[in-house]
Amino acid sequence: MAVHQGTFNIQSDRRPTFEDVTERVQAVLQGSSINNGILLVYSQHTTCSVLIQEASDDTNYWGTELLMQDLVNVLEKIIPTCRTEGQYLHPGPKHIVAAAGRNEEAFWSLNTDAHLRSVLIGRSQSIPVVNGKMELGEFGRIYFADFDQVRGRVRTVRIQIVGE
Amino acid sequence: MAVHQGTFNIQSDRRPTFEDVTERVQAVLQGSSINNGILLVYSQHTTCSVLIQEASDDTNYWGTELLMQDLVNVLEKIIPTCRTEGQYLHPGPKHIVAAAGRNEEAFWSLNTDAHLRSVLIGRSQSIPVVNGKMELGEFGRIYFADFDQVRGRVRTVRIQIVGE
Amino acid sequence: MAVHQGTFNIQSDRRPTFEDVTERVQAVLQGSSINNGILLVYSQHTTCSVLIQEASDDTNYWGTELLMQDLVNVLEKIIPTCRTEGQYLHPGPKHIVAAAGRNEEAFWSLNTDAHLRSVLIGRSQSIPVVNGKMELGEFGRIYFADFDQVRGRVRTVRIQIVGE
Repeated sequence: MAVHQGTFNIQSDRRPTFEDVTERVQAVLQGSSINNGILLVYSQHTTCSVLIQEASDDTNYWGTELLMQDLVNVLEKIIPTCRTEGQYLHPGPKHIVAAAGRNEEAFWSLNTDAHLRSVLIGRSQSIPVVNGKMELGEFGRIYFADFDQVRGRVRTVRIQIVGE
Repeated sequence: MAVHQGTFNIQSDRRPTFEDVTERVQAVLQGSSINNGILLVYSQHTTCSVLIQEASDDTNYWGTELLMQDLVNVLEKIIPTCRTEGQYLHPGPKHIVAAAGRNEEAFWSLNTDAHLRSVLIGRSQSIPVVNGKMELGEFGRIYFADFDQVRGRVRTVRIQIVGE
Repeated sequence: MAVHQGTFNIQSDRRPTFEDVTERVQAVLQGSSINNGILLVYSQHTTCSVLIQEASDDTNYWGTELLMQDLVNVLEKIIPTCRTEGQYLHPGPKHIVAAAGRNEEAFWSLNTDAHLRSVLIGRSQSIPVVNGKMELGEFGRIYFADFDQVRGRVRTVRIQIVGE
């Protein structure tokens, strides 16, 4: 029985970013000695999510897969993009002071929509590993999503595997 | 320490299907040597979910538990049933060509609502196993949901248990 | 390789309750011999959720962090607070009879909104443990949410850790 861990980075954009990380997660699994167990793909960022979805084949002009753009359109209806302060309760005055103390621009905190969208979609996916392979079915792909629209950033994708 | 895995199938309908799989998951656990650990109930299908909910006692004329029909009614408001192409961006033209290459009927891809609903609800549930039993509280039941409304299918429910 | 488990209680209110349980979960981890693995924070209650979110610094007059109140406001739009029977399909007549048999007040079952909200947010969070610490990034905090608004109760937060 063993525990194996790995990380890699992605670069997000100033719009909702969905990156297919399936091959990179599989590479982390192959670098381990684990053939059977549970593999966790995890976001340590509170405006990001991990999801499993079918690849959509077609993309829009921005390069976003259409099924992911459909998801963004649904989220936009229930959690509209935060365009200025006061649209949501957060960030409040103490939060802005605290952010300034970390040398953050005030507008960086105008990502309330991303905090809410990501918590609805979820921070991680747990995937069965059977005979050295992730069980993703015929069509499942793993996507790392960054919902933050105020700035592009380097993001960490974290993989944790427990098994034998 | 051990890893145990199991699968069983359910038959879904041409409407959102919620199947209480608690007893069958418990049977997989009992067939293992694991008394303490983490049990993962997982959907390898990208229009299906696994959820934990209270049993609702009453059902509608279709046999759907009322609490699950309430869930469908909420989802219908934010992610309406896909009734024809063009309602959502997905499926696009490349996707339809790819599906035809797999000998799929074009209307089988009109399940965009199911892809979106299932990713919102989530693909799996992780459940603590303590002294040979799943910790589901007084009322928790495990449901496998198939949100695909374009065709009924045989679906695989996958269980992965890690523990000792 | 080992399995470690722990529980602690929180007291919820007659409004959506969000309790930051990060320190108490960390204490359970420190009481184990596990340095690397997967830690599951889990709700065994079907109107409760576990989520990871940034601390919001500011609170409203009720003491609720603003980002959590923003979340409640979003949920209120799509799953309105259940104020009387008939607003949702659940609870139906059989459910009320069964609840009476458990000596429950009928109004205790008017928590359909909480059942639906909690299943949308999810029952648990799986978190990587690396070198004895949970990987929560710079800002991640663990919250236990009770969405039930019909009565305050003592709730169990359950932690299960698998690793070495």
